[in-house]
Amino acid sequence: MGGCLSKHFEMDISQAIAEAAEAARPAAARGRVADYIDQLANVDPTRFGLAVVELDGTEHVIGDIDTPFPIQSMSKVFALVLAMQRIGDEGAVHREIWERVGREPSGDPFNSLVQLEYECGIPRNPMINAGALVIDDLLIEHCTDPVASMLEMVRELAGEDIDLDMSIAAAEDESSHRNRAMANLMASFDNLENGVDEVLNVYNSQCSMMMTARQIARSMRFLAYDGIDPSGGRQVLSASLAKRVMAIMLTCGTYDAAGEFAFSVGLPCKSGVAGGIMAAAPDHSGICVWSPPLDEAGNSLAGRVALHDLTDRLELSIF
Amino acid sequence: MGGCLSKHFEMDISQAIAEAAEAARPAAARGRVADYIDQLANVDPTRFGLAVVELDGTEHVIGDIDTPFPIQSMSKVFALVLAMQRIGDEGAVHREIWERVGREPSGDPFNSLVQLEYECGIPRNPMINAGALVIDDLLIEHCTDPVASMLEMVRELAGEDIDLDMSIAAAEDESSHRNRAMANLMASFDNLENGVDEVLNVYNSQCSMMMTARQIARSMRFLAYDGIDPSGGRQVLSASLAKRVMAIMLTCGTYDAAGEFAFSVGLPCKSGVAGGIMAAAPDHSGICVWSPPLDEAGNSLAGRVALHDLTDRLELSIF
Amino acid sequence: MGGCLSKHFEMDISQAIAEAAEAARPAAARGRVADYIDQLANVDPTRFGLAVVELDGTEHVIGDIDTPFPIQSMSKVFALVLAMQRIGDEGAVHREIWERVGREPSGDPFNSLVQLEYECGIPRNPMINAGALVIDDLLIEHCTDPVASMLEMVRELAGEDIDLDMSIAAAEDESSHRNRAMANLMASFDNLENGVDEVLNVYNSQCSMMMTARQIARSMRFLAYDGIDPSGGRQVLSASLAKRVMAIMLTCGTYDAAGEFAFSVGLPCKSGVAGGIMAAAPDHSGICVWSPPLDEAGNSLAGRVALHDLTDRLELSIF
Amino acid sequence: MGGCLSKHFEMDISQAIAEAAEAARPAAARGRVADYIDQLANVDPTRFGLAVVELDGTEHVIGDIDTPFPIQSMSKVFALVLAMQRIGDEGAVHREIWERVGREPSGDPFNSLVQLEYECGIPRNPMINAGALVIDDLLIEHCTDPVASMLEMVRELAGEDIDLDMSIAAAEDESSHRNRAMANLMASFDNLENGVDEVLNVYNSQCSMMMTARQIARSMRFLAYDGIDPSGGRQVLSASLAKRVMAIMLTCGTYDAAGEFAFSVGLPCKSGVAGGIMAAAPDHSGICVWSPPLDEAGNSLAGRVALHDLTDRLELSIF
Repeated sequence: MGGCLSKHFEMDISQAIAEAAEAARPAAARGRVADYIDQLANVDPTRFGLAVVELDGTEHVIGDIDTPFPIQSMSKVFALVLAMQRIGDEGAVHREIWERVGREPSGDPFNSLVQLEYECGIPRNPMINAGALVIDDLLIEHCTDPVASMLEMVRELAGEDIDLDMSIAAAEDESSHRNRAMANLMASFDNLENGVDEVLNVYNSQCSMMMTARQIARSMRFLAYDGIDPSGGRQVLSASLAKRVMAIMLTCGTYDAAGEFAFSVGLPCKSGVAGGIMAAAPDHSGICVWSPPLDEAGNSLAGRVALHDLTDRLELSIF
Repeated sequence: MGGCLSKHFEMDISQAIAEAAEAARPAAARGRVADYIDQLANVDPTRFGLAVVELDGTEHVIGDIDTPFPIQSMSKVFALVLAMQRIGDEGAVHREIWERVGREPSGDPFNSLVQLEYECGIPRNPMINAGALVIDDLLIEHCTDPVASMLEMVRELAGEDIDLDMSIAAAEDESSHRNRAMANLMASFDNLENGVDEVLNVYNSQCSMMMTARQIARSMRFLAYDGIDPSGGRQVLSASLAKRVMAIMLTCGTYDAAGEFAFSVGLPCKSGVAGGIMAAAPDHSGICVWSPPLDEAGNSLAGRVALHDLTDRLELSIF
Repeated sequence: MGGCLSKHFEMDISQAIAEAAEAARPAAARGRVADYIDQLANVDPTRFGLAVVELDGTEHVIGDIDTPFPIQSMSKVFALVLAMQRIGDEGAVHREIWERVGREPSGDPFNSLVQLEYECGIPRNPMINAGALVIDDLLIEHCTDPVASMLEMVRELAGEDIDLDMSIAAAEDESSHRNRAMANLMASFDNLENGVDEVLNVYNSQCSMMMTARQIARSMRFLAYDGIDPSGGRQVLSASLAKRVMAIMLTCGTYDAAGEFAFSVGLPCKSGVAGGIMAAAPDHSGICVWSPPLDEAGNSLAGRVALHDLTDRLELSIF
Repeated sequence: MGGCLSKHFEMDISQAIAEAAEAARPAAARGRVADYIDQLANVDPTRFGLAVVELDGTEHVIGDIDTPFPIQSMSKVFALVLAMQRIGDEGAVHREIWERVGREPSGDPFNSLVQLEYECGIPRNPMINAGALVIDDLLIEHCTDPVASMLEMVRELAGEDIDLDMSIAAAEDESSHRNRAMANLMASFDNLENGVDEVLNVYNSQCSMMMTARQIARSMRFLAYDGIDPSGGRQVLSASLAKRVMAIMLTCGTYDAAGEFAFSVGLPCKSGVAGGIMAAAPDHSGICVWSPPLDEAGNSLAGRVALHDLTDRLELSIF
């Protein structure tokens, strides 16, 4: 819906992010930094960054917005977008993706095998680990080098060079028993075409992409702009598919707190275990907040508070 | 977001609903009419009505839009709105409602006891039966006669007289073993203040409210208009709470197809087992479609197709 | 198998129960008395009684073996036996009972609705609450007054007068939300013929039967003696059905600790929430131990220890 | 319990197995041969063998009792016995085994990940796949070559040479996604010490042991004889542990039909997916029946019927 609104808020955004940051920062103390790998456990829990990048390129930032951190599960959005790009038209997307992975919220912890077993190896959606593994399995079919293709796409969207942290990918691999369990379970239901190791390798690599909050905010703008990257004007995805990606983010992007996020934030979001949350504000901006301590659902605690505060102040809720 | 957009589509709505109706009607043949009570089983499955009522009162309708049918689960939205009204400020709403019922999609069939047991008697959200029973339990505290208050509210929103069909309420009661099971389970977890029979009585009554598609579409406009009923200008709910209600509808309003609806329709919706689906298009209109045959998730099959088609044509998706 | 073995242990039983009692009593301190109704909460947790009644009538007892306590879930064995008696031949038992209730261990807490829902209203076995409700539903068909018939049967087996404690039945009724939930769920699956209240009334009454450990031990002897009550020589159940009842007790009689009991005790047992455990030692004796504090699985903690110790000393394990 | 009973039935056993075989054979037609690997799928479904080997060595056999077939899950009993042997005293067994695997029936299909996840990686018992993997993990600690040790133990019990069919082990490995999923899940809960591949290798090998019904019947006798192998008089396991193994077989040995087997057969049994069922009749005999077609629970259909018939005729039920 019309870009006229941006004008209205133009002068307020910088003030709003400052106030949101102030409101949110103390909440971090109530959260817990992920500690299943050293690279996450050792991060400074007081790190906090918030970036809002408008469609016209204006950037409003506060805090640690130029410190790279692993994007982890936020990469699932890029993987899905890449799969849609490569598959092409909506009919083919439907046949290739949506028969192998659902579009429903999971209602269970993000790495639950229970649902996967009851539902015969069809993951509930591509924003949970099992679903992302299926998307990666598809990418292996469609890309010579899925990780290279993802990096290329993200570099273009962020306008800067972006790399993997191979030590993180390696550490993920060592603690990937549960993902391996899910991949094997899906293979037992014939919902994995490639080898478990190959698929996990793509997944662990994409999780280790190092990006800054600023870069992530930039990379979300194409979703907010009918699928077009406002920097170069390139159509990354059709307007229709861009809306679909945002719908999936809204209903499935924040584990078992998607309802809570829709309720209090009102924007399509995707969180990562390193404490990042990416969001797209349709016709307005790309947004990213980073604060490592997580709440019980696995989302950045101060990040959620900041987004709640910010969308209230800027009236960005899509509802 | 700005009302300027309505202009753009003004002339198209009538044509759009005609095309959506034509596209959707055949789908009804693939669905199944609910048959657990005679009053639903005996309905003509070819009935089809679609109504879009703009904020300014302009009504675009096609088909059986003046035939009353039981609103069933769509009443859950009215019950939630009434509870919010009566409780008043957001802090109190939080304390009284959200500590007793969640805001997360259920990921399980709408009447599942499993989740209710695992989550200690706290229903996942107020759009599933168990959650609606808790809301009704709250209404008994806050209203002298909850059903009378709901009728009053709905009459005002629809601008016409509305009544219960007591034969339907009685039939619901006779087939309410599962709701009774859930109510007793919640009582065993101390999440029901009033007697099981009293709560079920309110619930079965509200489900038997007889409304037409036109009336339902009108009654949704206040949600689309920052909580204000555009007919009389009365603030039904604060803008903030109206957004919250829509967020809950989007993530939880269509049983285990909420992701699918967000994906393909992109509007906050709530369905009922008689084949009605209500929707709110922010800053645009209230919408209702009616077609009795249901899909496997329990939502009107042709209704979903019609809304998908309509929101694509009118670009009404909130994403 | 032959009665010749009893001779061998004759002189040891009294000593064995003394030693078992001494070994077991301290364990009671680690358990917790059931407290969902006052009548159970207020019992003296140091009460302890152990009775072994041989087939020839010789009674070996120690401790509080003449204090009546509510038999609670142990009544499920009597209800099942009564149902088998009334239905008569094995073919009819199969058709009437085993199509409505299973014979498998539950693997879940004794009052779980989860399994009942997944398995479409068919309880796993007649030793859990849901299964006992189905048996009671059957008894209503087959007996003019099921509770009176159960009392009559038990009086004969125990050789003494036995009564209900109506205050306990009433208290059970008030805290029966969960049983009511299960009964309604089964009714929703058409696995309950009679009204929920009527069935619950039978169940709550049978749970309130007041018996002493000595009486219970006597009443188990017919199972140990091929279905014949050794007092009067009456065939209570066919030898074949008596074995079947014991098989169900062994695999399902002690909630989610049936494997543990088979492993450590090695006898068919059934426990009750008041701290009683009944057991049948084939060709040897009826046994009952009573100690109110329960372990996490809901079985008498000291009772289990005593039976483990006793069956080891007397080599009573059926394995 | 005394061996005097064998005398009584001496002359009947051969006749009983003939009658049981005749009664059971037709049932095979209603079952389905396992087909997840070619070696099982290609077996002749009319194969049928039944062997009863008395403690004194007298062998009563009928049908295909000298055709080797893969013992599959029956190997779980040998693995558990070997682990108990190597660990030694009961206290150590308790610490090393029972803190890592339970002793309760599973109440869910034999390869369910659901329960494993809810119960934090602790399998319900050593007779299901997950539990067997933990036992194998333990064996890797305690044996230089677990498979060689198992073969040695079984050769001694059966009195004949026994080997693996490496083509079966290889085929199992290729279709072991689900076992691999469980192993990884347990590793994620720190309930696996050794590598997933190493553990699966032991498991797949033991499943491929080729034995005849006669050999299996012989190898069960030590359980029926207080842990002593009646051939050589060697104490394979203490009497106490032998009873424990039988208790686990009775409550957990036939997947989700353990209650049914206890009810209708009344002997400790363990089944395998190739259609074998092994049983121990305390103080009487070792038994094995083989008929490839399985029922829905995964147990040999005609095998179950034969054992039911046989134990009724010979009154072998332990109850």
